Order: sequence, then structure tokens, then C-alpha cells
Amino acid sequence: MSYFAIGVDLGGTNLRIAAVKDTGAILETITTNTDVMRGRELVITEMCDAIRLLIGKHRAHGTLMGVGIGIPGIIEMETGMLCGAPNLPGWANYPVREEIERRLGSRVVLENDANAAAFGESWLGAAKDCNSMCMLTLGTGVGGGIVFNGKIWHGMTGMAGELGHISVDPAGVKCGCGNLGCVEQYASATAVKRMAMEAIASGKAPELGRAMAANSELTAKQVFDLAMKGDQPAQQIFHRVGESLGIIAAGFINALNLNMYVVGGGVAAAWDAFAPTMMDTILQRSFVYQATSPNDPKRQGKKNTIVTRALLGGDAGLLGAARLPMVEGQC
Amino acid sequence: MSYFAIGVDLGGTNLRIAAVKDTGAILETITTNTDVMRGRELVITEMCDAIRLLIGKHRAHGTLMGVGIGIPGIIEMETGMLCGAPNLPGWANYPVREEIERRLGSRVVLENDANAAAFGESWLGAAKDCNSMCMLTLGTGVGGGIVFNGKIWHGMTGMAGELGHISVDPAGVKCGCGNLGCVEQYASATAVKRMAMEAIASGKAPELGRAMAANSELTAKQVFDLAMKGDQPAQQIFHRVGESLGIIAAGFINALNLNMYVVGGGVAAAWDAFAPTMMDTILQRSFVYQATSPNDPKRQGKKNTIVTRALLGGDAGLLGAARLPMVEGQC
Repeated sequence: MSYFAIGVDLGGTNLRIAAVKDTGAILETITTNTDVMRGRELVITEMCDAIRLLIGKHRAHGTLMGVGIGIPGIIEMETGMLCGAPNLPGWANYPVREEIERRLGSRVVLENDANAAAFGESWLGAAKDCNSMCMLTLGTGVGGGIVFNGKIWHGMTGMAGELGHISVDPAGVKCGCGNLGCVEQYASATAVKRMAMEAIASGKAPELGRAMAANSELTAKQVFDLAMKGDQPAQQIFHRVGESLGIIAAGFINALNLNMYVVGGGVAAAWDAFAPTMMDTILQRSFVYQATSPNDPKRQGKKNTIVTRALLGGDAGLLGAARLPMVEGQC
Repeated sequence: MSYFAIGVDLGGTNLRIAAVKDTGAILETITTNTDVMRGRELVITEMCDAIRLLIGKHRAHGTLMGVGIGIPGIIEMETGMLCGAPNLPGWANYPVREEIERRLGSRVVLENDANAAAFGESWLGAAKDCNSMCMLTLGTGVGGGIVFNGKIWHGMTGMAGELGHISVDPAGVKCGCGNLGCVEQYASATAVKRMAMEAIASGKAPELGRAMAANSELTAKQVFDLAMKGDQPAQQIFHRVGESLGIIAAGFINALNLNMYVVGGGVAAAWDAFAPTMMDTILQRSFVYQATSPNDPKRQGKKNTIVTRALLGGDAGLLGAARLPMVEGQC
């Protein structure tokens, strides 16, 4: 008998839904350009229609294990309600899980999108052979997810893994969360753009200025391209990205001593520009890393601390969401 | 049938050994002024003699479950060897567990002393009713311990919980571990003394200067006493302690969303001087705390984030060590 589940990745501008076998094989993916700003009712209706379509098409392939949905918000695990979702107007304090279960007649598991991505990478991606791992997702913001002993760590109320809001500079840039100097302010796509605008405003980044003038808007990708072409102000921005990630990673490594730390999300595409600084910073700042570095010849064949890129790209959240109903007792 | 275990707390200047019932009742404690600088062989011999004495005296009360030993060092859990113990010369790369088991003929469990203290507080102290908790021990240095689902979190190689070496000021004071601005540099007894010396050297702390002149050495306790008498430079030092603890606690709360964070160790006696700043800092910097604050009237009766003082004082490590052989499968 074979099994499959439905995974949903609810983003700000599109909705991706996939039927995924318990082996990890994707049977089919549907992508809709659902603008969440058009309202909760519309999004849930389109989502349920697409899920029914996939279930109907693939039921012949096996037994449906349920539906997992990755959502950009904080989920109260006990009730299946969102208690914080700034990008999903109208979704807070609404019985999301219950309502979708009612419409579909299937078991539904909700999960924070960054947790779902971490779970995906721990199932099929960079952390496939690791029981415990931690992932940072560098996108518009910085999300995080922690997997301990094969289970997503939710903490007391489901709010665990908010790694993007740990300070890397306690006297630094004010963050929307109320804290100062959150890693999100130095390692997100938004932060890369802000730092590029600051560099342009300082008058010391002519190439970045030209790139902005030539386009209606400067993107993190353009800053990365300039960095890879050797533009120093652009390189400086990614040094700051790398240093910030290194500071936070050194803290995680000292606190948790995990085997695997994964960096994913759109900004991870700039790995070559920030990773050298990140790794230097970790080596300098974490004595636990120094004692467990895979580059130490004496540690060949031992369990070491690995810091690496995510492997699943945009599918991490989708696959992680599909995995949720396949496993029991997420803690 | 009743059960008991032996707990050992191996400090830098004395050795405490207790026979503890599985109910948590201490049957008897032996304290010896064993100077660890006199060498490993002597310490182990004295320890084993005292353990045998206690076992002999209390065997009539029940079945011995084993011996747990809290050690100021990093323990490789698989082999029972110390892989880092700067304060225990000659103990590294020596089969400590095996040797003590051989001499006693009993099961021996080794544990890092800060982990043992966290385990003690989670068994009988401040975190008694919490399944998961995190503890900072403010002593000569700053140690840490994490308990997840009732078990000490060791991580991949037993090095987890090194919370004292997380940066609270990435451009701050150089730490012996190689990192800059570790919380240990702002919240340990050593740090309180250093900050007091800096204040005296600045010429702006006359009361601290007088206290130092009147005694051969300035202690953290003297700085605390002056702070409680209203001396501003002394108060400033404890504000820095509180701010540093608040920054690191805000990060833990956002990352782990635990129910209980405990502050223990000698410097925790200065709670009244640093806790107000610590709590203000946490409230300002952690949106997870804001959403789960026990001071929010809407959250009465719900699970909230508690940051509190340790309750067991110097017995936390001893009781935690005794608990180790009572529970199976520490991960």
C-alpha cells in the first residue's frame, strides 16, 4: 500500500499545493497567484478547491494521510488558530484548521512556514541524515525552525523558532518586533536592500547607485551580482550579512551543539558572497565549533558541526508541510 | 522498597557528596575541602572514600541506584571522559567514569556541573512543575543548562548548554573562549569585580574605592551591598548585569519558547539589584515574551513565560547529580 499527503505553502503572492508520496516524490504541484490581500475567504476557497483536485487525481495512487499547511504566521498549536500573522489580514483569531478540516473532511495540520521549511530540509534536504537541526530562512524577513530528535520544536505555545528576532547588535537597527539589531535587520532581502540604499546615500557606492538608477527598484539579487563582480560596497553588505549570521550561528552552536545548521531562503542564493565571512565569524566566536569543526584533520570520521546551504529551494516548505500529516506527535 | 543515589558536586575548592532519596530528601551530606589543584588521583580517592562511607551508612534505607557526579568541565557523553576542564588539571583525556565505576563497583553518571544544577532545579526547585527549562548559573563564570521534555539536552557531543559564551555585545569585552562580549563578561562574579575595578579606575566611584581600600579584595557581594545602599556606580554595574541577562534571555525566549528560565549561582543573590533591568530588557526585546507575559491580565490561567530565581542555592548541582542515576536515557 502506498501513501501520500497534500502539502500547502501559503506565501504572500502565491499559493503552492502539492501531492507528495511518503517516499518524498512529488506527484503534482499546483501554483496559483492567490493574492492574500484579497481576503481570507477567497484564499481558503481556492486552497480547498486545489486540494480537492489533487486528492481526486491521486487517490488511485494510495491512501491520503492528511493535509499540511505552512503559513506565514504564529500558530497556537492546541487550537489551530493564528495568534499572529501580520501578512494575512483577517486570519488571526479565526479557527483556520477547524474550518479547512470541515470543508475537506480530512485531517489538517497547520505549521509556521519557516518551521515547515526546516522540517522539509530535515526530511529530504541538507539535514536528511540528522535527527536534530536548526534552519534560518532568509527571505523578506528571517524565519527560523528547530527540529529536535526528528520533531519540530514548538515550545510552550507554538512560538519557538523565532530566530530572526535574536539580536546580533543589541544597540543596532530598530526592528518591527520591538527589539534592536535583530538578525532580520542584517540578513534578510529587505536588509540587503536597506544597506544598499544606505551605501548609495553615503555617496560611496557608485555602482550600486547606477544599478538603482537603471532599474525602478534595487533588489538583493542586483546587490549580489555586483558583489560577485568585485564591487566593494556590495561586498561589504554581504560581509555584514555573513558576520550577522556568524554571530547568531555561533550562539546556537554554543547553546545547542547540534549537528546541522542550514541556511535557506532567497538570500541563501548569495551564499558565495556571505558564507566565507559567516564561517570565519563562527570559527572565531564559537569554541564549541572549534572543538567540532569538520575542517579539523583530527575529527575526520567523527560527528562534527556542519553549517550548510539548504538544498530544496522553494520546495522546502511545501515538502515539509506535506510531511506533517505523515508523522505523529509533533511536540 | 525505597531507593537512593549518591550525588557529587565537584567544585574548585571543595567536594560535596550527598546520599539522596528518590523522593528528593537528603539523607546526609559530606563536605570536604578538597583542593583540586592537589591532583586528580587524590581527589578521586577522597571522593570514592566518601561515597563508600555514605553508601555503607545508608544502604539499610534502600537500594542504591548509582552515583551522579557534577564536574566543572565538558564531558564526552559516550566515553565518559572530559574533553575540556581548565579548572581540573590532569583530568582531560582520562577515563574518569570508567575509573570511578571500577573503584566503586557502581553505575556512575558524569555531568557538566551547570547541567546538573539545571537538572536539580527542574527536579525539586524553581522549575519543578516544568517539563522544559533553561538555567543560567552566575558564578565565577556563567554556566548554562537546558532541559527539554524532562531530559538534559546534551547535543551532538555533550557540549550543549554553553550559554555563558553567547555574545550580548558582539564588539564587547574579549572572553577567554575567543568570542567577544560573552554574557560571562557582564554577568559573572568575575565580571562584577572587573566592572567595579573599571569604575574605581575611572575616578567616579568613590564608595567602591573605599570598599576596596578597606578590604584586601573587592567582592561581588560588596558591590551588591553598596548598590542596595543606593550607591549609583554600584547600581550601574548591576544594571549592566541585568541588561546583559535580559538580552540573552530575550534571545532564548524567542528561539525556544520555554515555560521557565531560571537564574542561579552566587551572583543570583544580587537578584534585587539586577532583576528589574533584566525584566525590562526582556519585555522590550522579546515579542514572544510580550505575547506570553504573566503580567498580562488577559493571560491569567494560561501557560506563560516565567523568568525567576533558582530555589535550591548551592544544593542544585548536588541534587541534580544525585538525580542522574535515577532516570534512564538522558539524551
